[in-house]
Amino acid sequence: MGKLAIKAKFIYYNNKLHQDKYLLVNNNIIEGITETLSDKTYEILERGNSGVFPAFINSHTHLPMSYFRGLADDLPLKNWLEEHIWPAESKMLDEHFVYDATILAAAEMIRSGTICANDMYFFSKNIGRALSDVGLRGVVGGGVLDFPTKFAKNSDDYLKRIEDLIEEFKSDELIKISVCPHAPYTVSPENYRKCIDFSIRHKIQIHTHLAETKWEVDEIIKRYGKSPVKLFDEIGLLDANTIFAHVIWIDDEEIEILGSKKANIAACVKSNLKLASGFIKANKLKEAGANLTIATDGNASNNSLNMFEEMSYFAKLQKGLNLDPTVMNAEEVFNMATKNAAKALNLDKCGELKKGNYADFMIISFDDINMLPVYNPVSHLVYTAEPSNVTDVFVNGKCLMKNREFVTIDIKEVKEKAKYWNKKIRS
Amino acid sequence: MGKLAIKAKFIYYNNKLHQDKYLLVNNNIIEGITETLSDKTYEILERGNSGVFPAFINSHTHLPMSYFRGLADDLPLKNWLEEHIWPAESKMLDEHFVYDATILAAAEMIRSGTICANDMYFFSKNIGRALSDVGLRGVVGGGVLDFPTKFAKNSDDYLKRIEDLIEEFKSDELIKISVCPHAPYTVSPENYRKCIDFSIRHKIQIHTHLAETKWEVDEIIKRYGKSPVKLFDEIGLLDANTIFAHVIWIDDEEIEILGSKKANIAACVKSNLKLASGFIKANKLKEAGANLTIATDGNASNNSLNMFEEMSYFAKLQKGLNLDPTVMNAEEVFNMATKNAAKALNLDKCGELKKGNYADFMIISFDDINMLPVYNPVSHLVYTAEPSNVTDVFVNGKCLMKNREFVTIDIKEVKEKAKYWNKKIRS
Repeated sequence: MGKLAIKAKFIYYNNKLHQDKYLLVNNNIIEGITETLSDKTYEILERGNSGVFPAFINSHTHLPMSYFRGLADDLPLKNWLEEHIWPAESKMLDEHFVYDATILAAAEMIRSGTICANDMYFFSKNIGRALSDVGLRGVVGGGVLDFPTKFAKNSDDYLKRIEDLIEEFKSDELIKISVCPHAPYTVSPENYRKCIDFSIRHKIQIHTHLAETKWEVDEIIKRYGKSPVKLFDEIGLLDANTIFAHVIWIDDEEIEILGSKKANIAACVKSNLKLASGFIKANKLKEAGANLTIATDGNASNNSLNMFEEMSYFAKLQKGLNLDPTVMNAEEVFNMATKNAAKALNLDKCGELKKGNYADFMIISFDDINMLPVYNPVSHLVYTAEPSNVTDVFVNGKCLMKNREFVTIDIKEVKEKAKYWNKKIRS
Repeated sequence: MGKLAIKAKFIYYNNKLHQDKYLLVNNNIIEGITETLSDKTYEILERGNSGVFPAFINSHTHLPMSYFRGLADDLPLKNWLEEHIWPAESKMLDEHFVYDATILAAAEMIRSGTICANDMYFFSKNIGRALSDVGLRGVVGGGVLDFPTKFAKNSDDYLKRIEDLIEEFKSDELIKISVCPHAPYTVSPENYRKCIDFSIRHKIQIHTHLAETKWEVDEIIKRYGKSPVKLFDEIGLLDANTIFAHVIWIDDEEIEILGSKKANIAACVKSNLKLASGFIKANKLKEAGANLTIATDGNASNNSLNMFEEMSYFAKLQKGLNLDPTVMNAEEVFNMATKNAAKALNLDKCGELKKGNYADFMIISFDDINMLPVYNPVSHLVYTAEPSNVTDVFVNGKCLMKNREFVTIDIKEVKEKAKYWNKKIRS
């Protein structure tokens, strides 16, 4: 890697926009920015009318579901899950499927400027393997359910798999492990408590779904006499090291509880709309003190891993719902997709371009037809940019995409494998 | 142009998906599809793992505002208009600005598979000129206001300009003209009536804004003692040849009125969310009988002319608002962005691939990373595709983009002009 200086029209450094400077990188670490560069030991990457920005951290995904992209659209959630997704998973899921599907997802992430995913799925060893092989960061979650699946027999067995994961990746600098009790309707309070103990024992994070649908809230109240948020609070999840995905069906009192605990929340606006789950009250959650982050959810329900579009949906929906266009401005939404996510996932030295942080960033062309003219580069990222505008991606100082070409992925092979599995799933 | 046969994995012909066939084009007209082709007089375009689809018709735009893309985001409508957009327009607008900005918009439309825009603006001669020069279709509207602008002194003067437009483009097969009274709060009932007479006399369409904001409805009730829809009904606009943009703030009775008149409606979901104007009740309007179409509005409020994203927003928002994921399925939304729009704009032989229609279509790669795997190509268009997946665009038999390269536009010049005007606007 060595010493690299990237010259670009815009550099978003220390959360501020700088113009016509060099970003200095030493191996995997950001050294600083400078206006002039006389030190000849730097390799220079000249990117002209482009911008260097922190790359995205997708705070809630199910990467291997990328092979189910578009398998079953326009269907009710129950039918979607029970008649399409679960049967496909039960038929297809194994280590090979998971590895190949994650590589497809990794390619999609790289081309759209995402350098880390907070994932929840099964056969997770191969998710971590795939991400690490291509050079992406990941918080790789091992799923936990009350009932048996192809993957494990019972809660202890699920947790045993996660111990294996921790062991497997203990010296991988890109991969962290989390424990993922699925949701309050598939995991008992007792098993949630086991996950909390496990998370403390192994110093890893908990990642779970919360209040995604009205059905879930009604069901949990029926079972336990209290809402999912209050149940989680009682179990201790709100005081644990946890990130919650969705968090839609909550009332004002619950917003206050989540805010006061500074809960980490992964908003999945596109997926929630497409499955007609509902609308996150993101503005109220933010004002109450929650740490909001942006996520795509899986490709089966999104149907992309495009964080540009996800930011745009998130910002616009909040403006619309609040009938106030000043709500959720571009800069704070971009921070949610980068800095807030790094904080939520305990990713030290990530999520921001600043001295001493890891050299994780994307370079975006401001010279493409859809990006012209340019008045405010940060608002262009949120409201205008498309994946095709990303030209280069670096993670931990390593270049994963250079001038729109993949460096660490054999894209022809990825496409062939996607078609091979496509045929198998359809048959 | 001559005889052309396009071979692709998918062809959406007669509103149905066909596989591994040839689409046959004779000069500017679609001849049919065939499985085998022995006739050697056809030039063959082999597109492999791609799809040929009707291209988009954007039913409400202000194309020259493309130069104001991102000029003023995250602002209240009043402030956005009065402190940013109107001053910029008043300073910048002239024939050169309008021509150059429309060419930028045209390039953006072509690269994202749009072959026609229903536009409303001023200095419209150069909008028509620009579209015609690059080979796009347009319904080019001349604006009408009660008050004077740089462009005209009074309503008769505005209408005179539109007569000039009609004369100018009377033998242009790509350009149609419309009369565009701006909105009920900027045009008096008397002037709306003049526009109706004008539209009948010249056999052209009326294009107007309707019920975009709550403020507008309150204001119109204050002025005239009735809502904008009821005012328009009384004036006769609902019985005239009209297309209405936005149509958000309406009640159930008004939905019934608009439905019974089969009103043509241009839904602008992204723009409405970004400006926090509100939510169109599209599902109710559809069920009542209105003819729904999809539009981006101008680049100043969107901030793109991306019809893929617009379909996706439209479909998802209706699912979310109705808490029903089966509402607005991919196929009907794709029809709104093509066939319904052609009907709304009286564009004969447009909006569908069928025998005898004009050869207007796009070719989309299903082989790109973000498009794999493929289960339902039409739902992929609505929920997955990006502009970068469009490889070829044909209008009236003429190729405007070939293998992702512009054929009729000097893209280097377009970029230089965008930067030139960008500098002028900022200064």
